Amino acid sequence: MRVQKNIPLNHVKVDDSFWSRIQKLVRETVIPYQLDVMEDKLPDVEKSHAVENFRIAAGEAEGEHYGWVFQDSDVAKWLEAVAYSLSACPDPELEVKADELIELIGRAQEPDGYLNTYFSIMYPERKWQNLHDAHELYCSGHMIEAAVAYYKATGKDVLLKIMRRNADLICNRFGNGDGKIRGIPGHQEIELALLQLYEITGEKAYLETATYFINERGKEPNYFQEEGKTRGWIMWSDGTEDGIYAQNHAPVREQDKAVGHSVRAVYMYTAMAALAAETNDTQLLTACNKLWDNITQKQMYVTGGVGSTVHGEAFSVDYDLPNATTYSETCASIAMCFFAKRMLEINPDGKYADILERMLYNTVLASMQRDGKRFFYVNPLEVIPGISGVVETHRHALPARPGWYACACCPPNVSRMLLSIGSYAWGESENTIFAHIFLGGTAELNIDGGVKIECESDYPDDCNIKYTISTKKDKAAFSFAIHIPVWCKNTRYTLNGKPQIAEIRNGYAYFTREWQTGDILEINADLPVLRIYSNLAVGGNAGQVCLQRGPVVYCFEEEDNKAPLAALRLPADSEITATKIADGALKGITALSAKGIRETGSNELYSEKPPKPEPITLKAIPYHTWANRGTGEMRVWIRE
Amino acid sequence: MRVQKNIPLNHVKVDDSFWSRIQKLVRETVIPYQLDVMEDKLPDVEKSHAVENFRIAAGEAEGEHYGWVFQDSDVAKWLEAVAYSLSACPDPELEVKADELIELIGRAQEPDGYLNTYFSIMYPERKWQNLHDAHELYCSGHMIEAAVAYYKATGKDVLLKIMRRNADLICNRFGNGDGKIRGIPGHQEIELALLQLYEITGEKAYLETATYFINERGKEPNYFQEEGKTRGWIMWSDGTEDGIYAQNHAPVREQDKAVGHSVRAVYMYTAMAALAAETNDTQLLTACNKLWDNITQKQMYVTGGVGSTVHGEAFSVDYDLPNATTYSETCASIAMCFFAKRMLEINPDGKYADILERMLYNTVLASMQRDGKRFFYVNPLEVIPGISGVVETHRHALPARPGWYACACCPPNVSRMLLSIGSYAWGESENTIFAHIFLGGTAELNIDGGVKIECESDYPDDCNIKYTISTKKDKAAFSFAIHIPVWCKNTRYTLNGKPQIAEIRNGYAYFTREWQTGDILEINADLPVLRIYSNLAVGGNAGQVCLQRGPVVYCFEEEDNKAPLAALRLPADSEITATKIADGALKGITALSAKGIRETGSNELYSEKPPKPEPITLKAIPYHTWANRGTGEMRVWIRE
Repeated sequence: MRVQKNIPLNHVKVDDSFWSRIQKLVRETVIPYQLDVMEDKLPDVEKSHAVENFRIAAGEAEGEHYGWVFQDSDVAKWLEAVAYSLSACPDPELEVKADELIELIGRAQEPDGYLNTYFSIMYPERKWQNLHDAHELYCSGHMIEAAVAYYKATGKDVLLKIMRRNADLICNRFGNGDGKIRGIPGHQEIELALLQLYEITGEKAYLETATYFINERGKEPNYFQEEGKTRGWIMWSDGTEDGIYAQNHAPVREQDKAVGHSVRAVYMYTAMAALAAETNDTQLLTACNKLWDNITQKQMYVTGGVGSTVHGEAFSVDYDLPNATTYSETCASIAMCFFAKRMLEINPDGKYADILERMLYNTVLASMQRDGKRFFYVNPLEVIPGISGVVETHRHALPARPGWYACACCPPNVSRMLLSIGSYAWGESENTIFAHIFLGGTAELNIDGGVKIECESDYPDDCNIKYTISTKKDKAAFSFAIHIPVWCKNTRYTLNGKPQIAEIRNGYAYFTREWQTGDILEINADLPVLRIYSNLAVGGNAGQVCLQRGPVVYCFEEEDNKAPLAALRLPADSEITATKIADGALKGITALSAKGIRETGSNELYSEKPPKPEPITLKAIPYHTWANRGTGEMRVWIRE
Repeated sequence: MRVQKNIPLNHVKVDDSFWSRIQKLVRETVIPYQLDVMEDKLPDVEKSHAVENFRIAAGEAEGEHYGWVFQDSDVAKWLEAVAYSLSACPDPELEVKADELIELIGRAQEPDGYLNTYFSIMYPERKWQNLHDAHELYCSGHMIEAAVAYYKATGKDVLLKIMRRNADLICNRFGNGDGKIRGIPGHQEIELALLQLYEITGEKAYLETATYFINERGKEPNYFQEEGKTRGWIMWSDGTEDGIYAQNHAPVREQDKAVGHSVRAVYMYTAMAALAAETNDTQLLTACNKLWDNITQKQMYVTGGVGSTVHGEAFSVDYDLPNATTYSETCASIAMCFFAKRMLEINPDGKYADILERMLYNTVLASMQRDGKRFFYVNPLEVIPGISGVVETHRHALPARPGWYACACCPPNVSRMLLSIGSYAWGESENTIFAHIFLGGTAELNIDGGVKIECESDYPDDCNIKYTISTKKDKAAFSFAIHIPVWCKNTRYTLNGKPQIAEIRNGYAYFTREWQTGDILEINADLPVLRIYSNLAVGGNAGQVCLQRGPVVYCFEEEDNKAPLAALRLPADSEITATKIADGALKGITALSAKGIRETGSNELYSEKPPKPEPITLKAIPYHTWANRGTGEMRVWIRE
């Protein structure tokens, strides 16, 4: 049932006013910074030890494993990000470093293909005994993703061979067949990785084992409880939980509400969608759509944050979306991008692409400081210093980004996400080219003999998009389907300067014709500032409005608006003006301003005197730029 | 520095339209119900075993101790409530039951005076080793309070003698003197109890040991850490914490912000105020006033709830007052009544008496269902079934009252509070009679040969209060000082029918003259419905209003207003009408109604469409009557 496939990253070049800056930052700053962290070269951040763990496992250094049992996955994500960087931008020096690291990983691998520094160093006798907590399959999954990406980027198969040996070990060990173990991963990830490995190798065992892991989940008897009975040692949990946390509460085709640990959940839904596409499994697709709708219509923040509770880093119940105490882990929004990409392969519908934009332009980008050296793990929509990050209920919702984390899943996940955006932007089927998101640069497609499309875009600053087509043959017959986000208004289309009426299907504008080199398709839309209202079932947002322009959700900071921000109001009839910031840390960013009201109340805790309104000018900045000018209050929703 | 003393309970008779019903309910329903629970006669509630523990400790039954280490204190509070009941209303049958229980307690006491069923039964070798967790001094304190109350009510000294033996053991064991142990209680309570015991016995050792416990707190080296080093066993904590939880972080005279476990804290502040009054300790009084102001001006809900976080059942930081996830333990608001009473002894200022009313008429009363058989431990200001009591962040904030608790500190605490309100209402000094709260009935005072005051009152339904004076001598010269709460407006005074101008000092109306039998002082004030606004630093209340009439804070229930309540608005110019409910579970209760607005928004999670307003009639009921008509949404603050 796969309708289209996103195109490989090395067929896309990114060149526009928004993403080029970010990718340059990740390439030039974030990637070197994160390697320095992983090699323990920076004194003032959380210790990583991730590279040293491999050295010790390889027998080339002395010492104990340090860090989480999934510390290896930081290295894997970093390598994947490097692969994406090299796809776009050759960098021999960086490639040498990556190759050396890959060689080290190879030397840390055990002869049978096993690869996990924690168990190799600390507890070789405990391998594979605690799938619920021990993250061995999770780490394998991330390293497989890195291997696939590195192979695609460089053509080098050293890591791919390492990880095929590892994958073969896993496929031989786990499954329903004779002599196999009925295990499933505690943290899903291996499923989507094996599907990627299958996609480039064609090796059926990888597809079969991914299928097995997905199908086996939620079946009785509960594997985690079974393994707990014989193990005799505990890592974190005793395996007796109800299964909600790791989505093991019901077979996946029966799941219709997103529950439990949000990253586990959405990595699994991503794999389910990929498997549905691969095997035409309509039941699985139905479950994916129910889960998608539940997340995006009941459990998602306007910023794209998902997983609203710190307890288990998890989804909560429908409409439980607290702004200040949310979790909204960066990795969960990244996972939503993966899920969207896989759903788009099956059904190019704007509802997936809109969410993809919402994730990217808000929570994912907000997680990284504009200098590329500090990162949010948790992404609140309301911050009050002195409470946020301090009191127990808000301890996780920090008002400023740290340089690194003991549990550092998010920072390298952001790197790989931001460098791979090109592969999310474009897709093609036999007869249609899809532009899922506006992304300046070029894309090379295979359709009808080969087509190259150049895109000029300043999105999301404006929505004047110009596509210039080149065809290898004289003419190329195809539909060009361009996603028109719901926040683009009054959209106009011209082909070679002449107004066109688009055929709009599911949020995409389709133009079907014989194209030839030099054809220019232009899309012009307004990006008005939108007032967004929340469903009233989310009690904390009632009476409040949030501002959005294009995909960019705005927020109010103390820096511009003076605390307490709860005292501010934006009247329903206030005109909102968008202007570029002239200087300072946010130079070039489009800020919003409007006539607003500040209320000044009594100093008493409770008073019969109503607060007095005074006129002020309110200023809002993109949520993705918050906490770049010191620490202060911030809020997304403001009283109307 | 004690200016006045509240008068003994048996000098007060309660007879009015509000409190008589409640006291009758507690006497006739709550007290028998709670004894049944403690004797394990009710099948459908949490097991108590509290009486059986005493039987086992006395050697009269077989078995193990069951329940918390402080299970004995439930029995103590029940006995104290019985004492207050007997003060007002002789009940030979109940008195026999209480006497039998007291005899049992005596038989459970060890020869040296030690009394604690948990340690006597389970771990006699571990006595006094873990003051931080083990609650031995806490249980003693509650049983001492019961003994004092029972002696005052009945003149019987059996329990008093038991508890003097216990108190003597404590006084001989703990202190700074030679051969004494430098211990302090983990849960404060013994301090205020020893001060009460001193007040009726005059035994200096009780005053000295109370003083010692108060002064020793917060001193280095940290006693809890010291005891933890030698003990070799752990109950809950290892004694290494920072001391905040049990207010052991600084000497008490240096404490100026309420922190840590709220009941521990306010029991201690109560004892500090009592000791300041007893010993003229101005430093201690200064600390009490700082702590009072911090609680009431920075950390208290409009309903009188204090201790806003579930983490440690504790105070949080200033202005961190979430409505839905609050803790607001019933016992903490009861403790605030104790604290207010002690502060009023030193300084009869309306600021204390107003808070006393706020506690009583809201959180304290709300904690008990109107049938007297179900109780709240936690008192939220906003409830959404499906989230409240369900998701981890709201697990403690139940939408309906349970019949009992494994940790049942609150229900018997409410009983003793509601039956002792008479002793909070009246006080006297050498030359002044104080009426701290309006309470119908009579009070007998000692002033100038003896004075009896009859009070007719339907407060808080209206504020038409009539005092009729009788003097034993022909004339009695005294000031009559009546607290006029801040929510009474346009207050008029008449003496024997003639308008008077009162001398108002610190929230009290003073009338100084020679009184004679038959003098009638009338107070008439309006009780308009007030719109109360919160300090804007409490972000969650911004833009919202709460309704209050007299001391009674109102709330909105789904039963009257349809969910979601977040969709409701009460325009600033809506007139609010007070009317009595004609029938049903809340018959006779004054409800409020006003023209309001219900917003209906999009079904989407986020939408560009603003919610549409439609006119409706809003209805509010007293917060103390919520959750008496089934389970539904409730909220105190409503958008204006």
